Amino acid sequence: MTAPLAVSMGDPAGIGPEVIGKAWEARLSRRLPRFVAVGDARALTRVWSGPVAIVEDVAAGAERFDAALPVLHVENTGEIVPGVPDAAGAGCALHSLELACDLVRSGSARALVTGPVSKAQLYDIGFTWPGQTEFLAERCGGVGANAVMMLAGPGLRVVPVTTHVPLAKVAGLLSIDMLVAKAHTTARGLTQNFGITAPRLAFAGFNPHAGEGGAIGHEEIDILEPAIARLRADGIDASGPFAADTMFHARAREGYDVAICCYHDQALVPLKTLYFDDGVNMTLGLPIVRTSPDHGTAFGIAGRGLANAGATIAAILMAGEAADQRAYAGERREPA
Amino acid sequence: MTAPLAVSMGDPAGIGPEVIGKAWEARLSRRLPRFVAVGDARALTRVWSGPVAIVEDVAAGAERFDAALPVLHVENTGEIVPGVPDAAGAGCALHSLELACDLVRSGSARALVTGPVSKAQLYDIGFTWPGQTEFLAERCGGVGANAVMMLAGPGLRVVPVTTHVPLAKVAGLLSIDMLVAKAHTTARGLTQNFGITAPRLAFAGFNPHAGEGGAIGHEEIDILEPAIARLRADGIDASGPFAADTMFHARAREGYDVAICCYHDQALVPLKTLYFDDGVNMTLGLPIVRTSPDHGTAFGIAGRGLANAGATIAAILMAGEAADQRAYAGERREPA
Repeated sequence: MTAPLAVSMGDPAGIGPEVIGKAWEARLSRRLPRFVAVGDARALTRVWSGPVAIVEDVAAGAERFDAALPVLHVENTGEIVPGVPDAAGAGCALHSLELACDLVRSGSARALVTGPVSKAQLYDIGFTWPGQTEFLAERCGGVGANAVMMLAGPGLRVVPVTTHVPLAKVAGLLSIDMLVAKAHTTARGLTQNFGITAPRLAFAGFNPHAGEGGAIGHEEIDILEPAIARLRADGIDASGPFAADTMFHARAREGYDVAICCYHDQALVPLKTLYFDDGVNMTLGLPIVRTSPDHGTAFGIAGRGLANAGATIAAILMAGEAADQRAYAGERREPA
Repeated sequence: MTAPLAVSMGDPAGIGPEVIGKAWEARLSRRLPRFVAVGDARALTRVWSGPVAIVEDVAAGAERFDAALPVLHVENTGEIVPGVPDAAGAGCALHSLELACDLVRSGSARALVTGPVSKAQLYDIGFTWPGQTEFLAERCGGVGANAVMMLAGPGLRVVPVTTHVPLAKVAGLLSIDMLVAKAHTTARGLTQNFGITAPRLAFAGFNPHAGEGGAIGHEEIDILEPAIARLRADGIDASGPFAADTMFHARAREGYDVAICCYHDQALVPLKTLYFDDGVNMTLGLPIVRTSPDHGTAFGIAGRGLANAGATIAAILMAGEAADQRAYAGERREPA
């Protein structure tokens, strides 16, 4: 039996457990790959009434998957109250993430899907990384800053090269070297995870109308154009910088495989405008496949049966396809 | 017969003449209000083979509308080569704009729709306004900076409070007074032009996640929140600041009548992502109704029959409805 995916449950008081249960319900209708949930089994049974099978290892989980949602239980000393996070729950979320990551690194599971955690809660228990992405990059032996966050919906992939920083500071963070490095990681990731042999990268301008040749700002001339030129010299199909406002309608999206954006909202506004309920966050630049639903813990609606599992289902599907692609490419590379 | 709309043709070498001709072809299928084109009649006949009626005045134009596209001819000493603008054409575009505006101010026409002009060409012949919007505001007796540009598609209205300025300068241009003034103009405009009695204004945050309470930037705390508080004290239904990335999906859009955005791309990216072919630019804060298609002269495709008239049709429809709304409100106010 093919190895299953490992899905960390995220904060036990958030909507993670509920959407994993709902995703399992959609296993046949959406043709999901087998997966094993990793987290506090009580968090799941508290908010979801489907069949749960607590298992000892991933292989046993894969065998139980058709009839019940398999869970690798992670100890949690606290009570679980949906919508009310606590330190014990944050610790459990972190241990679940570590275990799920290690199962994928060891090959027991073939891709990692991470449920939503509360960064505020994690910071309170001593977590020092900006988010799960950087944590996972280091746990996989890399450097957090080298990992690239890509958001994807059915018809659009975007990479914000800066994320949770004040907008007024973004211009100072952009550099030719940084853009070139992130673009190379992005191109490699699209080849590795999606089998796109020559990915087309379209850069969004920083200023309105991509600066209009310097009339409305100089970041295009000083940073974006030299970065694109260097990437093209490296053999990457990079283009732009384009006026951001005309890059994201349906016909324009056909012209590239990923849009490289200068700042958070430039990437996230079009993505979430089009794909609010099924956006997937995929980390590029890791040795493993990792996706997550592009939403948070949503404590405000946790435990009420209202959470939409669309993004979790999309994250599981994308992780499974990327793992298939990597396995396929690996087989082709190795002699028979 | 009700007064028609006046539609200025824009630059005679751009796609303006073609899309006006195509709009006239759609007069029955799209139930367009009657309109009279204002510009060089040769620019029209050069790129469009439908029936044209050169008329002496607006009333004669309205009577001819059903059988031919009526044109108030504006002299142009230059040759017309589609795709190749020149100074004579820019002068003709400016005179057409002036005449069309004055026809609406005098009441001969009931709303103004402006075709696309080339700002570069206009600047070369001494035009000193940033764009048509500010020019029209002054010609109508107001102040250019007080006019508000609103972009609209079938399911979204946005106001960018700053427009063609470098992104790094936007933070320095935002102020409580400026936001409050633009919001009042916006609210009045929605009432005047759309009959929305208590318009709901939703403000987008400047920073990612609307600053997360100051953790990612302070413009929300320093500028946006005080502006919203003052507007609410003034009786305006203002809300936010909201995280921009979660403001523009279908369910979120139901919560407001207009999104007030801090910068060009924050407003234009969602609008053009959703409504690339039928976005309308409406000026608020003028004594007259004025709309325009939300696209430029597109010299690159001019004269080739490729231009999409969707935005011009939408601009004509919106202008007609706004004029109807103003007339209806005027009748209700005045004693019988």
